[in-house]
Amino acid sequence: MTYLNEHYPNYGPSSWPNPYQPTYTPSYPLSPWYQDEDSSYRAKEQPLTFVLVHGAWADTSFWAGIASELSKKGHTVYVPEFPGHGADPNKNVTHAMMSKSIADFIISHNLHNVVLVAHSFGGTLIQKVAELVPDRLKRLVFLNAFVLKDGGMAADEFPPQATEQFKQLVASSKNNTLMLPFELFRETFTNLGTLEQAKRIYSKVSPEPAGPLFEKLDLKKFYSLPIPKSYIHITEDNVIPFGDPNYGWHPHMSSRLGIFRFLQVHGDHMTTPQYEPKLIAAKIYEASRD
Amino acid sequence: MTYLNEHYPNYGPSSWPNPYQPTYTPSYPLSPWYQDEDSSYRAKEQPLTFVLVHGAWADTSFWAGIASELSKKGHTVYVPEFPGHGADPNKNVTHAMMSKSIADFIISHNLHNVVLVAHSFGGTLIQKVAELVPDRLKRLVFLNAFVLKDGGMAADEFPPQATEQFKQLVASSKNNTLMLPFELFRETFTNLGTLEQAKRIYSKVSPEPAGPLFEKLDLKKFYSLPIPKSYIHITEDNVIPFGDPNYGWHPHMSSRLGIFRFLQVHGDHMTTPQYEPKLIAAKIYEASRD
Amino acid sequence: MTYLNEHYPNYGPSSWPNPYQPTYTPSYPLSPWYQDEDSSYRAKEQPLTFVLVHGAWADTSFWAGIASELSKKGHTVYVPEFPGHGADPNKNVTHAMMSKSIADFIISHNLHNVVLVAHSFGGTLIQKVAELVPDRLKRLVFLNAFVLKDGGMAADEFPPQATEQFKQLVASSKNNTLMLPFELFRETFTNLGTLEQAKRIYSKVSPEPAGPLFEKLDLKKFYSLPIPKSYIHITEDNVIPFGDPNYGWHPHMSSRLGIFRFLQVHGDHMTTPQYEPKLIAAKIYEASRD
Repeated sequence: MTYLNEHYPNYGPSSWPNPYQPTYTPSYPLSPWYQDEDSSYRAKEQPLTFVLVHGAWADTSFWAGIASELSKKGHTVYVPEFPGHGADPNKNVTHAMMSKSIADFIISHNLHNVVLVAHSFGGTLIQKVAELVPDRLKRLVFLNAFVLKDGGMAADEFPPQATEQFKQLVASSKNNTLMLPFELFRETFTNLGTLEQAKRIYSKVSPEPAGPLFEKLDLKKFYSLPIPKSYIHITEDNVIPFGDPNYGWHPHMSSRLGIFRFLQVHGDHMTTPQYEPKLIAAKIYEASRD
Repeated sequence: MTYLNEHYPNYGPSSWPNPYQPTYTPSYPLSPWYQDEDSSYRAKEQPLTFVLVHGAWADTSFWAGIASELSKKGHTVYVPEFPGHGADPNKNVTHAMMSKSIADFIISHNLHNVVLVAHSFGGTLIQKVAELVPDRLKRLVFLNAFVLKDGGMAADEFPPQATEQFKQLVASSKNNTLMLPFELFRETFTNLGTLEQAKRIYSKVSPEPAGPLFEKLDLKKFYSLPIPKSYIHITEDNVIPFGDPNYGWHPHMSSRLGIFRFLQVHGDHMTTPQYEPKLIAAKIYEASRD
Repeated sequence: MTYLNEHYPNYGPSSWPNPYQPTYTPSYPLSPWYQDEDSSYRAKEQPLTFVLVHGAWADTSFWAGIASELSKKGHTVYVPEFPGHGADPNKNVTHAMMSKSIADFIISHNLHNVVLVAHSFGGTLIQKVAELVPDRLKRLVFLNAFVLKDGGMAADEFPPQATEQFKQLVASSKNNTLMLPFELFRETFTNLGTLEQAKRIYSKVSPEPAGPLFEKLDLKKFYSLPIPKSYIHITEDNVIPFGDPNYGWHPHMSSRLGIFRFLQVHGDHMTTPQYEPKLIAAKIYEASRD
């Protein structure tokens, strides 16, 4: 019986407690003392240390299923929350505050040889985390995550019409946050899910701090780092509108990584990672092993 | 025992009777009185009303397998034939005649909350049907179907070389129709099928009225309608030649829909819908549910 | 019991003997006298004659698993080695020497109605073989294989940065060969494999003669030949960097074939063909049957 199973017998995204803690202690203490009875099964995978970084309109619960699957295979998994998200009431945050909090988390827990995995907007965070703690990282894994060019910002990666819509939504928020209407979210973030799944995921969405989406990032150091990189392309992800070759997860953003390990898997942006965690966890492992 | 099974024990595309009737009565009377013994199974899907619109070089038998699978799940399914197709000997038809006949079918059967599904050239028809009966439609679903721009025509969506070949074939027809040579059809419409499957599908192909393929459509109203839309991309469909980003089902034509629900499935243009109907019917349901 | 099973009970890429012979006798004598006990099973596939042409950084062992699977289904399979590869110590070869040796192999074994299959660089070879022995070929099948334009060279199909890296590696070789560093090979040729699989495949890699990669080919005759063609796209192949629409297996190179039969399958460039041979052999058959 694993730690996870003991404490979360009704495991699932909705029963997953919010692991956010202001001091950024490890969210998933599935640490070196973690033991699985079926060690022969575990032995099949090279044990890795994962730090999973969620994206916008999400909190650490996004990773709950995937973290559980990875830990079942014997991996050590951390899911840090970062400022402006989870239980943090302060939405007035900067990109640097968020990336620094993740780097601090890695340092304070004395993690080394980390596989740093990002989903969606989290990609922009791990680009900066890599600049802050390069020597502690074994590999970066992007799961339909943003890879910004030097000087770019997340908002650049949406076509002008979508960015314009975002700006209007931000203007209507009064606190510089961006909330997505359910109709849009259902069709583009959860397009493969049932209505029930889409609603359950949407019920956990908080308004996203808008500032960091419009911050230009200096990424010169990132593009000089020799850290190995992987990109997992989820093929039915409809968050970035299709149709213009100058936009999109893959190959538009993935190709900025230069030499990288490429993987592909069916799914949409939000439903598949949360409702088919075994599938995505397996891909993350394939993307991460030596 | 369902209506379908009683009447078509040897169900299959080749044994399927031609449901074309000049008065456009419902082809598949699997209507509200339809009952399935396994109601608990049916309960899993939200019951929907589908109207399925076939494409060029096809008749209602194209949908036979998919209609059967959808009706097994408790949905109400109609497959109207339209002028110039099926048993209609008159090939001298216009695009407006075809789209009006489908709108008339929906009105005369007093259908509401319709999921209007199109394959291939049928996409151009449901764009116009949506303009004619917008209040009766719940959603439009395009299955590797044309989405024309305002003022566009179907022939525009093929590269110049292909269009030129089409024009030569039309010129050689003497009655302004377009018939595809088997060799071309086998390699591009039925590329995943066996030779036997390709021949069986081809045996049902009639020369297509050429006029509507070259008609420019005013679609201003279509692009102002707020009807939800889905696009199902069949990934090995080779009907529109690959290689030029200005052509193709997805993302070139799909992206014209703006915000839409995206799904993807393996298959080719003609064989997979007819020989893997359960697979495609499941995708159509996923594309159509709330 | 088949010939293969008798002689290679521990069949696998590593136990596969090098079938290279300077006189180019058939590597796989699974010829007309080949008999399988389960003839009813075999009867399901139309018996075909395959000649399989490997690519760069490979030898005939690349095809071992696929050749075995095809022969189990009753097909006749030949895997010729060509100059500069396998046991040939002479790396000072030309493109014409390689393509001529394959054409000579087909002639000397009196093969007709051949399905000529190529992987990777082998695509450039079968383009020229088709010019040499067009009347002996039933179909050309490209499995993530180069399709060069008239006057093109293989090196053109890589973005300038990659070509530059290749040139530096050639310059450092002292004998005009090109050897890939393991790190690059692992991430881009074997991205889906385990480290063990990647190492096992890499252990068989010899430096590739660089001359033919930079030879411009006159392909006017190729583009006038009416031989049917198929392209099998392996979707996670990362050998040609993604991101520029002017590069890539599909649709960039595949579309040069004009009308062709298109198929798609998951996999990477080197691991999947060697470790999932049943999957790839099935696709090759689908690409090749009438």
